[in-house]
Amino acid sequence: MKDFPGTPGTFLGLVLRMSQLIFAAGSIASIATTHSFFIFSAFCNLIASMGLQVIWSFVLASLDAYALVRKRVLHNPVLVSLFVVGDWVTATLSLAAASSASGVIVLYFHDLGHCHFGEECQRCQISVTLAFLSWIPNAISSLIMLWLLAAG
Amino acid sequence: MKDFPGTPGTFLGLVLRMSQLIFAAGSIASIATTHSFFIFSAFCNLIASMGLQVIWSFVLASLDAYALVRKRVLHNPVLVSLFVVGDWVTATLSLAAASSASGVIVLYFHDLGHCHFGEECQRCQISVTLAFLSWIPNAISSLIMLWLLAAG
Repeated sequence: MKDFPGTPGTFLGLVLRMSQLIFAAGSIASIATTHSFFIFSAFCNLIASMGLQVIWSFVLASLDAYALVRKRVLHNPVLVSLFVVGDWVTATLSLAAASSASGVIVLYFHDLGHCHFGEECQRCQISVTLAFLSWIPNAISSLIMLWLLAAG
Repeated sequence: MKDFPGTPGTFLGLVLRMSQLIFAAGSIASIATTHSFFIFSAFCNLIASMGLQVIWSFVLASLDAYALVRKRVLHNPVLVSLFVVGDWVTATLSLAAASSASGVIVLYFHDLGHCHFGEECQRCQISVTLAFLSWIPNAISSLIMLWLLAAG
């Protein structure tokens, strides 16, 4: 398999995983400090999706760090196939959950013209923004993994 | 480039494009017959996204049909790169728009427990379902195109 920046066990790969992890954790932290938004299914789904993202990114970041320190190559086809499936599932769920929550945010802030929950409204906006920021490196990782598998 | 089912100019490729086209057109038709839901940005975005999906799928379906009839091979790297970009943009926008509209639907039907717009509520649910059904063949096409480009 080809070795290019962003593949498992490279520095860029680790940076992408750390970005996903940090933004997803930030998204959960922002929403977890509110009380009002737990009545909305869209925000519960966002927390569940970002939780999955945090676990997946943490495992992959640990693997990347291990490979970098020990100078191991993680280009086993079975392992890369597993990364492809995991990345695609988390990327799809993240985008769907972030978009779903943003639909509710836009409804309150733009369409209805107000948000009754005071300061918590800003925290929810920050949470959705961080979820989208977490999806971007996740989508890049997904594309790199699929490319790596296809290039064989 | 490798030739396998689903690549441009194959019968499965044409079936995937036609599915995207029919489901996206159905989604627009369902929402266009309502009046109340145009006040929601999420549904306006859904119409815009499905409109883009219809145009893109129609162009690609026409190309596939032409290639099938004339027995041409559409595996030019520049052409495939263009298909990859177009497919990824439409797939991402479709998923985001469908999820955003579903966030509003879930808010009204589940979280608030009612939908004030009578029969139009069902049409909006149908529209969102069709948008998700349009995204599935689009995502499959996107993966096939990226695989084709990477396998070069």
